[in-house]
Amino acid sequence: MYRKIDHHILKKLGEIAGQENVISDQEKITDYSHDESSSRDIAHPPEVVVKPGRAEEVAAVLELASHERIPVTPRGGATGLCGGCVPVYGGIVLSLERMNRIIELDRDNQMAVVEPGVTLGEFNRAVEEAGLSFPPHPGDESAQIGGLIATNAGGSRAVKYGVIRNYVRGLEVVLPQGEIIRLGGKLMKTSTGYSLLQLLIGSEGTLGVITRAVIQLLPALPVTRSLVIPFADIGAAIETVPLLLGRKITPLAVEFIEAEVIRITEEFLRKRWPSRAGETYLLVILDASSEEEMDLLSEAVAEVCLGKGGIDVFIADTPKKQDEVLEIRSKIYEAIKSQTVEILDICIPRAEIAGHVRRVREISKKRAIWLPTFGHAADGNVHTHIMKARCAEGKMIPVPDEEWRAKVDLVRDELYADCRARGGVISGEHGIGLVKKPFLSLVLDDVQIRLMKEIKKLFDPHLILNPGKIFDS
Amino acid sequence: MYRKIDHHILKKLGEIAGQENVISDQEKITDYSHDESSSRDIAHPPEVVVKPGRAEEVAAVLELASHERIPVTPRGGATGLCGGCVPVYGGIVLSLERMNRIIELDRDNQMAVVEPGVTLGEFNRAVEEAGLSFPPHPGDESAQIGGLIATNAGGSRAVKYGVIRNYVRGLEVVLPQGEIIRLGGKLMKTSTGYSLLQLLIGSEGTLGVITRAVIQLLPALPVTRSLVIPFADIGAAIETVPLLLGRKITPLAVEFIEAEVIRITEEFLRKRWPSRAGETYLLVILDASSEEEMDLLSEAVAEVCLGKGGIDVFIADTPKKQDEVLEIRSKIYEAIKSQTVEILDICIPRAEIAGHVRRVREISKKRAIWLPTFGHAADGNVHTHIMKARCAEGKMIPVPDEEWRAKVDLVRDELYADCRARGGVISGEHGIGLVKKPFLSLVLDDVQIRLMKEIKKLFDPHLILNPGKIFDS
Repeated sequence: MYRKIDHHILKKLGEIAGQENVISDQEKITDYSHDESSSRDIAHPPEVVVKPGRAEEVAAVLELASHERIPVTPRGGATGLCGGCVPVYGGIVLSLERMNRIIELDRDNQMAVVEPGVTLGEFNRAVEEAGLSFPPHPGDESAQIGGLIATNAGGSRAVKYGVIRNYVRGLEVVLPQGEIIRLGGKLMKTSTGYSLLQLLIGSEGTLGVITRAVIQLLPALPVTRSLVIPFADIGAAIETVPLLLGRKITPLAVEFIEAEVIRITEEFLRKRWPSRAGETYLLVILDASSEEEMDLLSEAVAEVCLGKGGIDVFIADTPKKQDEVLEIRSKIYEAIKSQTVEILDICIPRAEIAGHVRRVREISKKRAIWLPTFGHAADGNVHTHIMKARCAEGKMIPVPDEEWRAKVDLVRDELYADCRARGGVISGEHGIGLVKKPFLSLVLDDVQIRLMKEIKKLFDPHLILNPGKIFDS
Repeated sequence: MYRKIDHHILKKLGEIAGQENVISDQEKITDYSHDESSSRDIAHPPEVVVKPGRAEEVAAVLELASHERIPVTPRGGATGLCGGCVPVYGGIVLSLERMNRIIELDRDNQMAVVEPGVTLGEFNRAVEEAGLSFPPHPGDESAQIGGLIATNAGGSRAVKYGVIRNYVRGLEVVLPQGEIIRLGGKLMKTSTGYSLLQLLIGSEGTLGVITRAVIQLLPALPVTRSLVIPFADIGAAIETVPLLLGRKITPLAVEFIEAEVIRITEEFLRKRWPSRAGETYLLVILDASSEEEMDLLSEAVAEVCLGKGGIDVFIADTPKKQDEVLEIRSKIYEAIKSQTVEILDICIPRAEIAGHVRRVREISKKRAIWLPTFGHAADGNVHTHIMKARCAEGKMIPVPDEEWRAKVDLVRDELYADCRARGGVISGEHGIGLVKKPFLSLVLDDVQIRLMKEIKKLFDPHLILNPGKIFDS
């Protein structure tokens, strides 16, 4: 179906992007065969990696690929967890890493103009230096802006500040046949035709390649504070969320985390979490306009949590203490990745989380499989990890292959059935990619999937752009 | 091209929706031939009005219409300003007025589930009674939820709380061939396939008919306050906005309004605006979590405004005073509508507003035409009114037809050229509809319009749903 890369194509790619930016050395190419998914089963090497420097080069690569029927897989920071940037059909990996300029930080309009290869870490630093903030906090700092937009990344702060989609105001996109379009701009509002911009956001690099983005910023958050509250019971911990919201408290983030993964991560990082009590922690992050307001807010949160069974309240009120807590939270996946088979990304109505987590516990017990679960308690996004180890005394103890392998499909099916029954979706923020593709039809009906496939064909008639992702087109 | 309505079709429509909900009486039908656009030139009567009561009835009407090639124009509150619900090809007007139930106000999830015919006024009252808020404030209270979503309505509060798009979490939509799809849900996050939900929002009833919506709510805004600041110079008034933002003040809304339209509206409503000084007013609406915070915020706003040439600061701090100010602001269009030829809805980067308004003044002077301009100073959305009267001493004095008619196209062209040069779009919140259709290609390139037309054909192969809107498909 697809044409293989030969010397003729390599030469043309070199003419487009410069020979030094066309990599076909087998060893170097291996790095481009996977993302951060724990499963190496899904890895697949490209035939060539191209690193364009400008939108016009991206356009020329895509025009050539469409003409010659060569698959092209765009790649950002490759921090994804479902194989979205794995070149399953070989062909070209189009790495945006060289297009990494912050073109403009426009204070008057509170907008940034960036290339897709800027990392989240660099972006956040530049934004902070400009006295502004980019509220979403979608995890890994080495993620790149293009990928964050392509997956409509979320993060823990969606409860108060929404997901990436809410911040993207403009995009320059190269379409699969090489046309460059510019959507939106430094605009807070638009009702000017169908929103191709919104359609592109979250399309996982299957409809076009993002080569520039205009991103809305906000004023810097004056005061933030993190509270860690241990609970004996995970259900009670999660059930504090509607109580907080009912008291008109909208935290920046509310994370729930089971104690055992905290212990493993403490060990992994050689850092200390502020509490050893309880079985589950709530991590409540607050923002406020002044220290006084923050004190009132913290007291109100503490009162609600203690009233609902919280054992204690630890306050991280200095940047150092906050960083420690947030670092442990953000490194859990790294700490347990070696024993993780699959990380789920279920999103359900937030009032359903306690019930869903109870179901996770039941399934874990019934199937005798470790299913550590943590996530965003206030926005309904739950990350259950299907593990190939058991946990004992803060250590991960591998389980024989044949034992866990037999259980993975059963457990996933049961969890997705519960997700579906609660009106949820199988991805809140990671995307579908390759790993979740077989399960898309569990939550979307045939009509919707048919419309998506038809839209795909409109944009990409030769099906060369990131083929094999989201659905089989 | 389209089939005319005959007795056979009328009978079938009666079987679907009930005879009493199928209206073909010529007199009654006239009400359904226009929206709130000042121009009656664009009015066109339908052949029949159908008022379905359930999604299944909507589906049956659309299936019949697709099969028989009958145009169907969905209609909400008809408060639009660009003819979006005018049945230009006759056929069926599908009025959603009977589907007006608030199905659920879910406090734990902070979500409302509503039918499309609920008015904004009813919705806001129900939401407030539940102790919650729906922050966008897109103008006319008789607008209906379905229409607000179909146009991606904005309003004055977009600067702080975003537009309708940010609040729609789920939709039930009937597609043109009668299929019912359910998108999203009570979900804060989703990255599960292309966002058909976002594509439908703002598609002006051309891709599907919304029969149910899930809408995100927020906790009630604790304290709000409105400040009215007169300025001698409109440029200085608008230029306070970046200064406010630079001091980390994000108002709920910042409106700029020229004094002469305030005088006319005072007269029209027989109400008093709090100030008679100056040529332009800034109306700054603030929200805060406490009276103390509000006092600090108001002082900071006053300081910035007075430093930039504000003549005085009037504070509307009681609900009664606030309502008076907001009522005058919201009724300006009604007060000047009889002499308005066309209302523009340009949206540009907010830092460009002062320059654009200066250009409006130049054009007004050069062409000797009255162009009152007001709008949302902090989100870049400017409503310039092309008038067929001149203004003298707070009165509108009609100008002879031949005089203004010769100028309208020239003035619009010049204003759109300025919009385009500043990276703007021709609709920030009203939509394109019929009135702005000829100008879409000024701001969108051929590739984008082609993609939109192709998407339209995917959803609606027989082109029966709201034909003739946005573009000629």
